[in-house]
Amino acid sequence: MEPRRDTKWWGWGDPETLPELDEVALGILRERIGALEPWPLAAELGAFSLPPAQPLPAELTAAVGAERVFASDEDRLRHASGRGYADLARMRAGALEDAPDAVVMPADAEQLRAVLDVCSREGIAVVPFGGGTSVVGGVEPLRGAHPRLISLDLGALRGVEVDLRSLTARLGAGLRGPEAEEALGRHGVTLGHFPQSFQYATIGGFAATRSAGQASSGYGRFDAVVSSVRLLAPTADLRTLETPHTAAGPALRELIVGSEGVLGVIPEVTVRVRPQPAVRRYEAWMAEGFEAAAEIVRGLAQGPGLPEIIRVSDEEETQGSLALSGPRGVTGKAFDRYLGLRRRRGGALVIVGFEGEEESVARRRSLTVRGLRAGAAAYLGQAAGRSWEHGRYNGPYLRDTLMGMGAMVETLETSHTWTRLEELHGAVAKAIGDSLSAQGTPGLVWCHLSHAHADGASLYFTFISRRRAGAELEQWRQVKRAASEAIVACGGTITHHHAVGRDHAPYMEAEVGRGGLDVLRAVKEELDPAGIMNPGKLLAG
Amino acid sequence: MEPRRDTKWWGWGDPETLPELDEVALGILRERIGALEPWPLAAELGAFSLPPAQPLPAELTAAVGAERVFASDEDRLRHASGRGYADLARMRAGALEDAPDAVVMPADAEQLRAVLDVCSREGIAVVPFGGGTSVVGGVEPLRGAHPRLISLDLGALRGVEVDLRSLTARLGAGLRGPEAEEALGRHGVTLGHFPQSFQYATIGGFAATRSAGQASSGYGRFDAVVSSVRLLAPTADLRTLETPHTAAGPALRELIVGSEGVLGVIPEVTVRVRPQPAVRRYEAWMAEGFEAAAEIVRGLAQGPGLPEIIRVSDEEETQGSLALSGPRGVTGKAFDRYLGLRRRRGGALVIVGFEGEEESVARRRSLTVRGLRAGAAAYLGQAAGRSWEHGRYNGPYLRDTLMGMGAMVETLETSHTWTRLEELHGAVAKAIGDSLSAQGTPGLVWCHLSHAHADGASLYFTFISRRRAGAELEQWRQVKRAASEAIVACGGTITHHHAVGRDHAPYMEAEVGRGGLDVLRAVKEELDPAGIMNPGKLLAG
Repeated sequence: MEPRRDTKWWGWGDPETLPELDEVALGILRERIGALEPWPLAAELGAFSLPPAQPLPAELTAAVGAERVFASDEDRLRHASGRGYADLARMRAGALEDAPDAVVMPADAEQLRAVLDVCSREGIAVVPFGGGTSVVGGVEPLRGAHPRLISLDLGALRGVEVDLRSLTARLGAGLRGPEAEEALGRHGVTLGHFPQSFQYATIGGFAATRSAGQASSGYGRFDAVVSSVRLLAPTADLRTLETPHTAAGPALRELIVGSEGVLGVIPEVTVRVRPQPAVRRYEAWMAEGFEAAAEIVRGLAQGPGLPEIIRVSDEEETQGSLALSGPRGVTGKAFDRYLGLRRRRGGALVIVGFEGEEESVARRRSLTVRGLRAGAAAYLGQAAGRSWEHGRYNGPYLRDTLMGMGAMVETLETSHTWTRLEELHGAVAKAIGDSLSAQGTPGLVWCHLSHAHADGASLYFTFISRRRAGAELEQWRQVKRAASEAIVACGGTITHHHAVGRDHAPYMEAEVGRGGLDVLRAVKEELDPAGIMNPGKLLAG
Repeated sequence: MEPRRDTKWWGWGDPETLPELDEVALGILRERIGALEPWPLAAELGAFSLPPAQPLPAELTAAVGAERVFASDEDRLRHASGRGYADLARMRAGALEDAPDAVVMPADAEQLRAVLDVCSREGIAVVPFGGGTSVVGGVEPLRGAHPRLISLDLGALRGVEVDLRSLTARLGAGLRGPEAEEALGRHGVTLGHFPQSFQYATIGGFAATRSAGQASSGYGRFDAVVSSVRLLAPTADLRTLETPHTAAGPALRELIVGSEGVLGVIPEVTVRVRPQPAVRRYEAWMAEGFEAAAEIVRGLAQGPGLPEIIRVSDEEETQGSLALSGPRGVTGKAFDRYLGLRRRRGGALVIVGFEGEEESVARRRSLTVRGLRAGAAAYLGQAAGRSWEHGRYNGPYLRDTLMGMGAMVETLETSHTWTRLEELHGAVAKAIGDSLSAQGTPGLVWCHLSHAHADGASLYFTFISRRRAGAELEQWRQVKRAASEAIVACGGTITHHHAVGRDHAPYMEAEVGRGGLDVLRAVKEELDPAGIMNPGKLLAG
């Protein structure tokens, strides 16, 4: 088995998919952020510049067999970064300062153990690699104190064991979202975990980053569906019991979930699954504004029957995303409404999605419609909902297009209680907008509310502006810092579901306090005394 | 404010409450476990023998003020044990080998901080004390390496802050269950946490032990409703953010919840609350047997509408508990059925309870009734359900009565996936029964399933036998060991909701592995390097 090479090496997903913007979208973009200067790739794959690979000890090759060690430039490059804006900006520059010395792909947990043993002994840094879709610098080849570094590709860990009686499934870390769903689907069940990265991200990554999916309001965040987990660490092999609940002390499972490779490697995860839904129904509504829509969602989240998917775009995103995405698949009356909306200000687009048995969907839809109507939202129809569903994984493809045109496009997310959500929304949007304007690149700043919880919700920001050619990373860092500081000042979390990685590590002390960081570092010291596991991430701020 | 002295010093709860068994119950008991030899208290409170108190440094008194340090024999005795069978057996003996040197009752978190600072410096062991209702030796005054020990009574930490918009409440650790509910009730909300210890256990204890309540199938286990928590540890003051969810690394909250006082003290907890239910409906059903009933519950737990309370007694418990509890409050036709059942073998009593809005209760009851009827269960009526509800906190009172008559009465609990639940049920019941018989004191062994999760459920065992006079603790230890080993052999958890304390500490390695124990001990070393926090518990096995 070889590492995957089926995605764009410089961008997102399927190499053939590069959406084009229509005239309406281009016009709005020009009007709002100014004229763009194209941003071509500085080098093709063959001419891309990587530092030479350091030699690795023969024991490492012996641990997995030579056929499981890959050191071609392409494999090194493909494992040298995730898929955040900064990663892709570096790719466009045609050269990277660092890359793994090799990609090692253990066949099973035993080989994985052997690799960790060699790397601990030899002081070789290890970056666990699943789908490579991190948008927070989670898989960057940072060596820390170690002269050598490998990317540990988990793609061969593909076990699937389904227990239909207990509705659980043990899944190998290397399964991509669709592969896991396909295997579960053969048993009639689903995990229901559909983040935007679903098509390429892996089970191990979902667990290591506390992922939340677009349907997490209904199916639960990934950490909430993990029933047990295993961690192979340099000093230990941890497994939690597969019991539904225990009161036996602090939850080790919750130390492993979210550990982002800095404590060890998650080779497999046992998750709770559900029967595949008989019915799927997506629809769109238009609320009077973001605050009104958030109130509707709060009512639903605190009531007895939330949809699986509920998502509210603020006024800026409503206008902007309708403008950019175009009327895909929307026909008839809804099409007219759509076209009208593309040029109108105000209003907040609400997407609701129901999945389940017919009876359950009907009941919850009735509660949801009641809430939406009481909040003065207007029905836009199922076609508009299906249009969202159809495009639910398209965001990163659109980013490729916009970056190629010369734009900076980035997203970030946070969460807070309902009580402080609007304050957080305003403060972060302002911080991003101000930072962009101060740099002479005023931009679009969009936000949507998703992942509704009884006590609060997440906010997901997207911003688009001209890039500062030649200073793209500095431009990005300034906005990111402004947004992060605004989040911290409001008491929001630095990340609701993208994880910490390298980018948010400086904010972990604000998140968990000095004492909390000391505790997590003590855990790392116990499990990884040589500090080989994913240096420079999570606890390194 | 003084420490509470409103409960039996030698038993459970209200000193005036000591239920009597009727003739039917006494007859069945005699028939099943043999004639009992009364077990009187060896000494009254005034004559109870305690070791002399070690002198404590003046700095400790200065930290809280002399009016917050209590060293009377009564206060020392009342803080010298929890309320497990072994605790109460020791009480009946009239003498304890150890007791706290004083009870210290800080007024607030600042005083608590000062107490921890003095105790860290001076090497004084600290046992955090909430309701003192631990049944696993969680508050025993074990000194470890320290010559002096205080009981840290949290009864003065009584803050209540309700956020109705986000449906959360910050609650002081020292609030008893009914006090918290009363305060929340003034705002129209409820925590919905009703363990059998509800009347005397505290908020801090619920969090420190990962408590589950009788209605946890509906409202969620206590750990699942904690949105944020604070820990005052010797080296740190940890607070987690009050955001609904975060992906920022391992969950510190889940390290604090369940820490049982060995890492520090939980002064307050923020929990998610719900509107008070408009409707409460409890009812009883009779299934053909335990396995059939467990299948019904599995179907409900994996479906779209579980009752708040669902509980199934196995055949032994059904017969035994009906026999012992008598027909309280049951009249008419249900009364006749009840009387008949008291002498009949076979059948598994199912209690279901619904709490919520009328519509939600009606809907879920309809689903539940459908499931029960499909599983061939027979309706016993609401009166029998109310009888259970009326007696839901009576178990510990009945234990006082039975112990006074000369019986050993103990409970223990575990959980597993549905796939292995029946195996666990059989193995543990057999282990307990065999151990009792081997000791010449054959007994009643009951079990009920409660706390239904989608992937499994908990099993709660009760056993009653003659005591081995003069060797009560040895007798208890043998049975407890047999049961614990059977649980471990089946891969069940050593505790679903009673926690670990002293009694289960030897099984923590089986629960979390050697590596897991090392990790938790590294956390303790970081937060409590002097090892003063609750020695001999949780991680001391």
